[in-house]
Amino acid sequence: MSGGAIRERDLIRRISEILGGVENDDCALIEAGERYLVATTDMLHRQTDFPEIMNPWQIGWMAVAVNLSDIAAMGAEPAGLLMAVGLPPEDDLYFIDELFSGFRDCAAYYSTRILGGDTDSHQELTVTGTALGWVEKDLVLRRSGARPGDLLCTTGSLGGAGGGLYAWQQGGLDSPLIEKLLEPEPRLAEGRALAKSGAVTAMMDNSDGLALSLSDLSAASRVGFVVYEERLPLAEGLEEMVGRERAVEMAYCAGGDFELVFSVGREKLEAARQACQLTVIGEVVKEGIWMERDGERGRLEAKGYEHMIGI
Amino acid sequence: MSGGAIRERDLIRRISEILGGVENDDCALIEAGERYLVATTDMLHRQTDFPEIMNPWQIGWMAVAVNLSDIAAMGAEPAGLLMAVGLPPEDDLYFIDELFSGFRDCAAYYSTRILGGDTDSHQELTVTGTALGWVEKDLVLRRSGARPGDLLCTTGSLGGAGGGLYAWQQGGLDSPLIEKLLEPEPRLAEGRALAKSGAVTAMMDNSDGLALSLSDLSAASRVGFVVYEERLPLAEGLEEMVGRERAVEMAYCAGGDFELVFSVGREKLEAARQACQLTVIGEVVKEGIWMERDGERGRLEAKGYEHMIGI
Repeated sequence: MSGGAIRERDLIRRISEILGGVENDDCALIEAGERYLVATTDMLHRQTDFPEIMNPWQIGWMAVAVNLSDIAAMGAEPAGLLMAVGLPPEDDLYFIDELFSGFRDCAAYYSTRILGGDTDSHQELTVTGTALGWVEKDLVLRRSGARPGDLLCTTGSLGGAGGGLYAWQQGGLDSPLIEKLLEPEPRLAEGRALAKSGAVTAMMDNSDGLALSLSDLSAASRVGFVVYEERLPLAEGLEEMVGRERAVEMAYCAGGDFELVFSVGREKLEAARQACQLTVIGEVVKEGIWMERDGERGRLEAKGYEHMIGI
Repeated sequence: MSGGAIRERDLIRRISEILGGVENDDCALIEAGERYLVATTDMLHRQTDFPEIMNPWQIGWMAVAVNLSDIAAMGAEPAGLLMAVGLPPEDDLYFIDELFSGFRDCAAYYSTRILGGDTDSHQELTVTGTALGWVEKDLVLRRSGARPGDLLCTTGSLGGAGGGLYAWQQGGLDSPLIEKLLEPEPRLAEGRALAKSGAVTAMMDNSDGLALSLSDLSAASRVGFVVYEERLPLAEGLEEMVGRERAVEMAYCAGGDFELVFSVGREKLEAARQACQLTVIGEVVKEGIWMERDGERGRLEAKGYEHMIGI
């Protein structure tokens, strides 16, 4: 699970220059009167993006979930999805039925639906989802906007999907963390409530791991972050399974969690807490990305899962 | 260049049932106040969708053009595109630069732009484009709406891309038809003008060939068509190159032309002609899809390029 020869974020910068500048948010924003239309796309491949144990229904669920997570990260409401699928010739009708049922069920779980798409045949299963959403212009949340002094927060718990992958690799198929890996639940209600709270200054999802999210938020907001390691809400059972050191590393660097990472004006923390359950994990500072453990600060490297990323 | 084991339109029907019904238009329609947001996606692969002689810039152009053609077919104005790309490890920076320049240049040619996307690595070049557009609710053109007695029309000429493919396969690299194959120009201005004319009752593009378009229009509008073969506007030089019989077959069955095929109220033909250059090629009838030659009617089979098709 690593990026190609050219590191993907470098490639994205090059592509962005060719295209004349592409905003670096979880979704593209398109003017639509008093609202923005938000749109995002993710291409996923059988071998690199879907754990081997995933059943076809879970592959379908996942392909929709990763796109809805980007909609959540903007504070938007989903308006529907398009799913383009390249099906290998060996996939039978059972596989196809389950895959598309997974698309349907994940969309329905979030009160939206599959509007259309495209199918053709391809040697390796390839699924490109596109999610669309709406958000009021004064509520939209972006990667830019974090200010030194703001509090750094996350929804849910961290490292669970990484722990699920580890458990599976170790043969521990009964670990409850495997469900986190295989059936991720993007934070649409939380993202929307946070947008309406007026408390959040910047937001994105952590689908490539917390460290990369902080790196991206840092670049967009031109600020730094300090994370207080003891505050990280590690997924339940993770530390017991892999030890403290590795659990923290998974929280930073493992992909697949689909939580929201965001900054909150210090005076508005209560409003954010009323919007959704959250954990304050650090603060926004002027520069650098730091991790503080036992009162000592070290640099946090921008490592993470560099594969499923938007330009 | 043929479909998979399961014919793709059959597969689409199955998928549509799983998803609880998907409208069978060139784009999905999403409510947006007085307008519709229209959205379409197409997944294209190096080996099956891009002729071998295409250079990377042309691949980029093509991947944008096929999606804009679907926007044109709804009478909509483009609002931007998302491009998801799986890049093979062997593709160098020259390839990447040219590919994305092709995206950019095609979008700019049609006064729109690439808003974002996704990149990752994949064994075979795979490009999934998604195009978005806007159309007023009272102007939108769909596959349904054709009425017996309406005139059947097409923009531009037919069979040119098929002829270009033939010329290339025969080594005739100087044929002007090759450009039609490699750098298709979707009919956005024509689609928009036809929508505003109020003359059109149903429309789609002919990217899979005229015969499949008529089959789809027939199913959506619950009507039939008769095509007068001598009226087909064959691409310039096509008949001289491949003979009358084969030229007509290419007009019916070869993909890649990206013209608009539409029905016009008989009394509104003049309004349609003022909107854009068109050729009346037949009529809407109650049922069946017929081809008339020298006063004799035969059934036109729904053959065509069954690969790049939307659900």
